[in-house]
Amino acid sequence: MGSDKIITAGMLAIGDELLSGRTKDKNIGHLADMLHLAGIDLKEVRIVGDEEEMIVEALDALRGRYDYVFTSGGIGPTHDDITADAVAKAFGVPCTHDPAAMELMAAMYARRGMEFNEARQRMARMPVGASHIPNSVSTAPGFSIGNVHVMAGVPQVFIAMLEALLPTLETGAPVLSRSVVSPFGEGDIGTQLTAIQKAHPDTSIGSYPRFDGNRFSTEIVIRSRDEAPAEVAEKAVLAMIAEIASAKAAG
Amino acid sequence: MGSDKIITAGMLAIGDELLSGRTKDKNIGHLADMLHLAGIDLKEVRIVGDEEEMIVEALDALRGRYDYVFTSGGIGPTHDDITADAVAKAFGVPCTHDPAAMELMAAMYARRGMEFNEARQRMARMPVGASHIPNSVSTAPGFSIGNVHVMAGVPQVFIAMLEALLPTLETGAPVLSRSVVSPFGEGDIGTQLTAIQKAHPDTSIGSYPRFDGNRFSTEIVIRSRDEAPAEVAEKAVLAMIAEIASAKAAG
Repeated sequence: MGSDKIITAGMLAIGDELLSGRTKDKNIGHLADMLHLAGIDLKEVRIVGDEEEMIVEALDALRGRYDYVFTSGGIGPTHDDITADAVAKAFGVPCTHDPAAMELMAAMYARRGMEFNEARQRMARMPVGASHIPNSVSTAPGFSIGNVHVMAGVPQVFIAMLEALLPTLETGAPVLSRSVVSPFGEGDIGTQLTAIQKAHPDTSIGSYPRFDGNRFSTEIVIRSRDEAPAEVAEKAVLAMIAEIASAKAAG
Repeated sequence: MGSDKIITAGMLAIGDELLSGRTKDKNIGHLADMLHLAGIDLKEVRIVGDEEEMIVEALDALRGRYDYVFTSGGIGPTHDDITADAVAKAFGVPCTHDPAAMELMAAMYARRGMEFNEARQRMARMPVGASHIPNSVSTAPGFSIGNVHVMAGVPQVFIAMLEALLPTLETGAPVLSRSVVSPFGEGDIGTQLTAIQKAHPDTSIGSYPRFDGNRFSTEIVIRSRDEAPAEVAEKAVLAMIAEIASAKAAG
């Protein structure tokens, strides 16, 4: 159940491949969707490469400012997976092979007849004091320490970890949103929409241009934590569209 | 033509809709691709909402640190488009209706028989001293001031603006990359790949796990600004794959 408290979050996506264009991130949009539904306000996202100093700096900035920080990427078995070390450094604790993670993973690899080698054991490393985020896809857990939640970059694994994590977090009052598609571009509606926003301060009205290659239309989204003001603002938006359409029909 | 100099960049994507999940960003991946081809190193990306203080803070952090900053979003005609004001504030200059942009846009709307109203005129606002980034899609220009390049959030317009902007920028030595697909997951190759990276310090070797719902494979990418070390490292990676495949075939 959500409370009336506002809960904020930041995200840190980690990986050279996101900055070189080789991989197109899918986790940011998924996290944004899931947090929105959970009533947690995602306020900022940062993407940095596999560089310890950059990761630590971004983590420190985000974890000091928001209730939760979610990270993606850099917890695999190879040399460029340095997120666990960076998180440990940010928290000033050692990064070691977590005994419970080692046990989980040893059992899984034994069942599958695969060697639990040094590289795979690397995935059991986490800051001392961290708790596991279960991984229903490939066993090697993510982890939480303080307000930081560290998850994998592979989207299927990120999704599974987030699904396990979210029910354990405190959530806020969900933001209600209503969406109205305006057949007119922002240029036609901007002045009136500004007036509508001013007249309905309990709502946050966003306008999102769409371009089909030929003409612009606009998706107008009215957000509010209460039902009543959103409904009133929605009617004002619909009246605006009716007025512009009539003027164009007559013109 | 690229030089041997390393040119760095940061990106700031602006918009509440990116943080609520309503819009899935496409500009970050496109910018990453284009900068990679141009030999400009994208080092960091931030996403913030339509809040002046957040935009100014992120801009100041990025423009002080990187050679170029590219922004997307928030330059349309509605009340939530506040990027021009925020950029002006960061540079400590007024934000006014740019006369040349007003002229361009007035002519375009006149040609199309559309009213050049207050909302549309808002798109001509930019910090005093800014220069235009041409917009071949919908006329209203982006702008550059100092090392900050401000572009639209609508992907078609962002793409067009970036295409116009990039040839005007100083570019660096392009990073060459070679990619080898390993049929084995990171757990099988991690230890040896770490040794290969250590033995080839002139290259940066990334490993990117793929998961098909059943098993992991790995894309191994060798990056270098010179051809020769990348070629040697690529051969070492291929030898590693051959060795693991032989062992599995014999096992």
